[in-house]
Amino acid sequence: MTEPIAMIAVDWGTTNRRAWALGVTGNVVDERGDGEGLLAVKPGGFAKSFADFAAPWLAGERTLSVLMCGMVGSKMGWVEVPYIAAPADLANLGRKLHPVPFAGKARIAIVPGVSCEHKGVPDVMRGEECQVLAVLAERKLKEACLLLPGTHSKWVQVRRGQLASFRTYMTGELYNALTSSGTLAQLMEKGEADGDAFLKGVERAREEGAGALSHLLFGVRTQGLFARLPRASLASYLSGLLIGTEMKDALAWTGARQIIAVGSPGLLENY
Amino acid sequence: MTEPIAMIAVDWGTTNRRAWALGVTGNVVDERGDGEGLLAVKPGGFAKSFADFAAPWLAGERTLSVLMCGMVGSKMGWVEVPYIAAPADLANLGRKLHPVPFAGKARIAIVPGVSCEHKGVPDVMRGEECQVLAVLAERKLKEACLLLPGTHSKWVQVRRGQLASFRTYMTGELYNALTSSGTLAQLMEKGEADGDAFLKGVERAREEGAGALSHLLFGVRTQGLFARLPRASLASYLSGLLIGTEMKDALAWTGARQIIAVGSPGLLENY
Repeated sequence: MTEPIAMIAVDWGTTNRRAWALGVTGNVVDERGDGEGLLAVKPGGFAKSFADFAAPWLAGERTLSVLMCGMVGSKMGWVEVPYIAAPADLANLGRKLHPVPFAGKARIAIVPGVSCEHKGVPDVMRGEECQVLAVLAERKLKEACLLLPGTHSKWVQVRRGQLASFRTYMTGELYNALTSSGTLAQLMEKGEADGDAFLKGVERAREEGAGALSHLLFGVRTQGLFARLPRASLASYLSGLLIGTEMKDALAWTGARQIIAVGSPGLLENY
Repeated sequence: MTEPIAMIAVDWGTTNRRAWALGVTGNVVDERGDGEGLLAVKPGGFAKSFADFAAPWLAGERTLSVLMCGMVGSKMGWVEVPYIAAPADLANLGRKLHPVPFAGKARIAIVPGVSCEHKGVPDVMRGEECQVLAVLAERKLKEACLLLPGTHSKWVQVRRGQLASFRTYMTGELYNALTSSGTLAQLMEKGEADGDAFLKGVERAREEGAGALSHLLFGVRTQGLFARLPRASLASYLSGLLIGTEMKDALAWTGARQIIAVGSPGLLENY
């Protein structure tokens, strides 16, 4: 490490945990990650789990500030932190930090998640609000539409510097469910991603009057039955249908002409 | 048995098999069923499986006509019978029967399924065409829209006595997948069907601009997280969302003002 550690940032999710040690100038001086997400932590074991994980960084004299975000603040997490209701002023998130008692050399606080409502039905995020804040700060934006793809994709509308509203799509989870069992999975063979089949799926989903998703999904089966697509390409077609229906709905919802996509290149490529 | 058997009708599906022995006047004189669907039959074992199943009926002197419908005519079935393309004249289905060689005292034929296309993507049915034919014959109808709910619901448009077109929805399969594993299933508790929660789901799905199904599904989670619905009612809400999106799409597609629903009372109640 070239620089002494000034603070630690942690993204602690359901299945994974990543952390960065930052120097006084904000540079990342070290980082680490493991699979000890919420599901792997024993009840009451969060303090010990974090102490072990961050031990190399907490060995110094100074007491470090630690900021955590993600599902660690959920009912299943270390401490349940109430959501902030949108429209949420992200610049003021710092005032809403939730302190967590910790015996070691760290002052730990969890960043609250954000909630919004669509016609009486709540929607929630935990962790993504920090990614949104980072993008807004880095690009000095006050108006934007952001897309954060994943198991639960988020489309986020930012207005006047506030996180105004957002929508979650269970696109990745549906993909995992439909490719792991059931009549569609039975037809599928493993294969490389097929870009053409993916685009066919996207186009089918975006056609006018194409139909409800549960109807479009049956097309994965028939494309296989009639050998219109090789079995190894059916998963790509399915992915196209799911992402296509998500995009059709989300683009109509935001009305935005420009979307900032945030995520790893592999995930973003399909959007 | 009050009357000698004149013919046998069999609906042989993927997981179940049902059969009816008919007298000369068309009355059902006996019926039987078991769980020996396609998945339970050994490769090459269809003839033996049927001979055992129908043995009590085939014991007489006469050679009986046997009509089979359902997935028994699929690639996984006894013999693969090509689909008839819609628009299909159901009254002429009898001319397209596919004979199956059989050593016992039965002349067996399989009724072909029907296929149609939606913008280049095929849709298929096997077995439901016979249910449609029965309803049309019984009610002397030439114009109708029929709904046959199930794991794969079918909406069928009949025009001038022909099976003009249809749409399949994987509604039941999605329900099974989402209630058996994943983040929604984790939140659910077993309970009686909750009619109010079901209707909430239907209404949410049918609202203008409600969003793509993968977005609506996340609402099952948040309704649970925010205790807007008891955990034992989340499955009913999910069912409402799935059936609601199906109905919204199918009603717009058919434009029909009257729908004839065909199925068991338990299945039909929700529609």
